[in-house]
Amino acid sequence: MTDKKVTKEELLKKAKAPAGIAMKLHPYYQGKIQTVPKCSIWDFDAFGIWYTPGVAAPCKAIEADKNEVFKHTNKANTVAVVSDGTRVLGLGDIGPEAAMPVMEGKALLFKYLGGVDAVPICLDTKDPDEIIRTVKLLQPSFGGINLEDFSKPKCYKILETLRKEMDIPVWHDDAQGTAAVILAGVFGALKFVGKEIDQVKIAMLGVGSANTRTAYMLETAGVNPKNIVMCDSKGILTKDRKDIIDGKDYDTFKYDLAQKTNGEGVSGDFGNATDGADVLISASKSEPGTIKKEWVSKMASDSIVFACANPLPEIWPWEAKEAGAKVVGTGRSDFPNQVNNSLGFPGIFRGTLDVQASTITDEMCIAAAQALADVAIKKGLSADYITPKMSEWEVYPLEATRVGMKAIEQGIARIEMEEKELYKMAEERIKHSRDMTFSLMENKFIKPKI
Amino acid sequence: MTDKKVTKEELLKKAKAPAGIAMKLHPYYQGKIQTVPKCSIWDFDAFGIWYTPGVAAPCKAIEADKNEVFKHTNKANTVAVVSDGTRVLGLGDIGPEAAMPVMEGKALLFKYLGGVDAVPICLDTKDPDEIIRTVKLLQPSFGGINLEDFSKPKCYKILETLRKEMDIPVWHDDAQGTAAVILAGVFGALKFVGKEIDQVKIAMLGVGSANTRTAYMLETAGVNPKNIVMCDSKGILTKDRKDIIDGKDYDTFKYDLAQKTNGEGVSGDFGNATDGADVLISASKSEPGTIKKEWVSKMASDSIVFACANPLPEIWPWEAKEAGAKVVGTGRSDFPNQVNNSLGFPGIFRGTLDVQASTITDEMCIAAAQALADVAIKKGLSADYITPKMSEWEVYPLEATRVGMKAIEQGIARIEMEEKELYKMAEERIKHSRDMTFSLMENKFIKPKI
Repeated sequence: MTDKKVTKEELLKKAKAPAGIAMKLHPYYQGKIQTVPKCSIWDFDAFGIWYTPGVAAPCKAIEADKNEVFKHTNKANTVAVVSDGTRVLGLGDIGPEAAMPVMEGKALLFKYLGGVDAVPICLDTKDPDEIIRTVKLLQPSFGGINLEDFSKPKCYKILETLRKEMDIPVWHDDAQGTAAVILAGVFGALKFVGKEIDQVKIAMLGVGSANTRTAYMLETAGVNPKNIVMCDSKGILTKDRKDIIDGKDYDTFKYDLAQKTNGEGVSGDFGNATDGADVLISASKSEPGTIKKEWVSKMASDSIVFACANPLPEIWPWEAKEAGAKVVGTGRSDFPNQVNNSLGFPGIFRGTLDVQASTITDEMCIAAAQALADVAIKKGLSADYITPKMSEWEVYPLEATRVGMKAIEQGIARIEMEEKELYKMAEERIKHSRDMTFSLMENKFIKPKI
Repeated sequence: MTDKKVTKEELLKKAKAPAGIAMKLHPYYQGKIQTVPKCSIWDFDAFGIWYTPGVAAPCKAIEADKNEVFKHTNKANTVAVVSDGTRVLGLGDIGPEAAMPVMEGKALLFKYLGGVDAVPICLDTKDPDEIIRTVKLLQPSFGGINLEDFSKPKCYKILETLRKEMDIPVWHDDAQGTAAVILAGVFGALKFVGKEIDQVKIAMLGVGSANTRTAYMLETAGVNPKNIVMCDSKGILTKDRKDIIDGKDYDTFKYDLAQKTNGEGVSGDFGNATDGADVLISASKSEPGTIKKEWVSKMASDSIVFACANPLPEIWPWEAKEAGAKVVGTGRSDFPNQVNNSLGFPGIFRGTLDVQASTITDEMCIAAAQALADVAIKKGLSADYITPKMSEWEVYPLEATRVGMKAIEQGIARIEMEEKELYKMAEERIKHSRDMTFSLMENKFIKPKI
C-alpha cells in the first residue's frame, strides 16, 4: 500500500498484470462457484426423505402456506445475481455470456464474505420490460435479487419496478451498494477531520447510478441537499438546465437532483463546484487529470477526496494531496482508503436475509456504512485508514447486525431478534462459509493454484 | 427387499412414514443444496483475479467468442432444474413455491450421483409461452435445461420448442428420463427371459409423457411399433378413435402413436391389449387393481410386468406373479426391480455435458439404458435383479461414457474423446462430488442428522 508517485504507465502495467494470471486460472478452475449438499446423505434411504416419497410432506405444507417455503428450502439464503451484460465493469456492453465471469465472481464474494448462496443469471435480452418480466418470474426460488451491470437509464426502471412489484428485496449493487461504501468512507473521513455531516458542502462529479444514489443517501444521512453540487459531462446540475428538463423522462433522478441540490445556483465547470467544498466524490472517467489539481486547491481546509473510477482514479492521490486534500480514497486496493463494493453487499444481504426483510432501504445501507466506519474508528483512524479492508472480516457480522436491526426498527422484517442473537447468527453463518472453503482447499476438493 | 404379501394399509402406512421424518429434517437443514467456491482463494489477492481487475480478461475473451464461456466459467457443468409446479410428483398443481423442495432434491441428486451442478428455478407462471420465453433467456448461464413436473400437454410444446430454439440440451425428465430407465428394465428382463426385442409384443397402460416417450424409444430400440398396443383411460388407442382424432392438436403424440401402433387393430379395454403380450408397461393410476390379474394371465409365457405408478403400483407384485408374470418391476424401492429415474438423469447429463453435446437424443438415452442393463447382466440377472440400484454407483460413469460416445458418433458433440478418457473424466467428476460430500459431513460442515 503506497501513495508515493508512480507513473501512469507503471500503474496501467500493474493494473494489467492480473489479466495474464486470470487467463491462466479461469480455464484451470472452469468456474468459481459450484453446488454441494447442504443436508446430510446418511445413506441411500436419505433420498426417500429429500426426494420422493418423503418430500411430498413439505411440498404440501408450502402449498397450504407459501411462506413455509422459507422454512423448508434454501430460498431464504439464496440470491440471484442478475445481469444483461450491458455495462460490465469498465468494459461496456459485452453481452450476457461475457458477463458470466463477473457474476460468478460476485457469487463467490457473496458466499465467502457473507455466507450467502448466490446464483449467476445472465439474461439473453437487453429489453428492460423483458428483464423485468423474467426476474419477477424467478421469485419463487430466490430470497433476494442482486441487479448488476445494467446500463443507464434502464437500470433505474428495472430496479424501481421490481422493488415495487416483488415481495423479496431487490438491490442494484452499482447504486445502493456503491453508495453504502462511499458513505462509509465519508463517515470515517469526516470523523477523522472533525467535521459534522449536517454542515459539510459536497461536490460530486458524475451522475451515474452510483453518484445518483449516493446523493440521495447523503441527504438521508443528514447532508443538506442544497450543500451538494453535482456535475455531469455537460457541467454543473442546475434547476434550469434545458437538457436535464428535456430529459426528465429519460433520467428522472437527475432532474430531481437538479431541482433539490445546488442551493446557491452555481453553474459552469466542476471547478466552481469544488470551491469551498469539504468533500469531493467522483464516479466519472477512468483518467487521471479528469479532476484538476487547481479544483482540489479551491476546496475548504481538511478536504476529503474520493476519486472512485477504475482502474485509474480521476486524479492521482499524490496530486490531490499536493493540492491540499487531507484524506484521499480511490477504487484501487494498492492505494490507501479503497472504496470497495465487496465491503457492502455481503454484510448487507446477510443482515437482510437473516431477518427476512421485504426490501433494503437506504437507512439499512446507512446503518451498514456506519458499521464499517465504526470498525475503522475503533481501530484508530488515520489519513490512510478511514475505512476497513475486506480482509477485516469482523466487519461483515457487524454490518449484518446493524442492517437487520434497522430493518426490524423500520417494521419490514419477517423475523424479529435481539441484537446479540442476530450478531451470533450472522457470525456463525459467515464463519461456516469461510471455514468450509478452507476445509475444501485443505482437503484438495478445491485444487491448489498453479 | 421383499415381494411377500403385505396389505394395502401396511404399505400405505410404510409409504407415509418418510413424511414425518421429512417434516422434521427439512426445517432442520433449511435447504438441500448450497454454493461453495470451486476455485482457490489463496489469499485476498485472489479476488483481484476472480473479480476486478483480473476478471476483465476472460470477459473480453468471451466477448470475442461466445463459446469461450464454456472454458472460463462453470456453465459447462451447470443445469437449470425448471418447473412451474403444475404436476409435481403425484400431488398435481401445487404451485412453484411448493415445487421447490422437489427441485432442490433433484439438484441434490444431480450433484451427488452425477457431479452436475444444478440450480432449482421454479417459475411464477403457468403460461407455456411465458415459460418458453423465460427459459430461453436463461441460456447464457446454463449448460443444460432439465424440465420437471410440467402438466400435459403443455410439457410437450415447451420441450419441443425449447429443443428447437436453444443451443444447449433441453430434457424433460418425466419423458426421456423415465423412458430411459424403463428401457433399461426391459433390456434386462428380456435378456433374462431370453426374448429378442424385435420380436416382442408390448402392452402399455397410460399415455402420459412417460409412456409416450417410452413407446417412441422402444421403437428406436428395435420394437416393431405395430407390436405395441397402448391404452388410455378411454380404452385402446386405435387409428380411428374419434376423440384422439379430434384432439390431434391437443396431443399430437397420442394421435401419431394411435396411427403407428396396434397393427392388428385391437380395441376395447386393456385386457385385449395384454392378450399374448410379452411385456406390460404401466404408468397409470396409483391404485392396486388398476391392472387385473386376469389381464396378466392372458400374457405370453415368461411375461414381464412393469407397474410404475407411485406410491402404489397398479397391481401388487405377488398378484402379477400369481397370474404368471416371470419378472415384475415397480416404482418402489422396497420391492425388487425398482424403475427409478435417479438411475438415469445424473449419468445421462454427466455424459452429455462432458462432450458438450448440443442435445440429448433418444439414441443417447438408449445407450444409457443399455449401460444400466449391462451392469445388471454382468453381475448376474435374476427375476429379482434385472436392473441395478442407485447405490451401485459404478453405473453412472458407465452410462456417462456410453451417452457421450453416442453423442460423438451422432456428430452432436462439441468435444471429442476416446472412450477410456471419457470414462476416466466422468468417474473422476462423480467421485469428486461424492467424496466432497463425505468430507463435508465428516468435518461437520453438513450437520449430522437429528
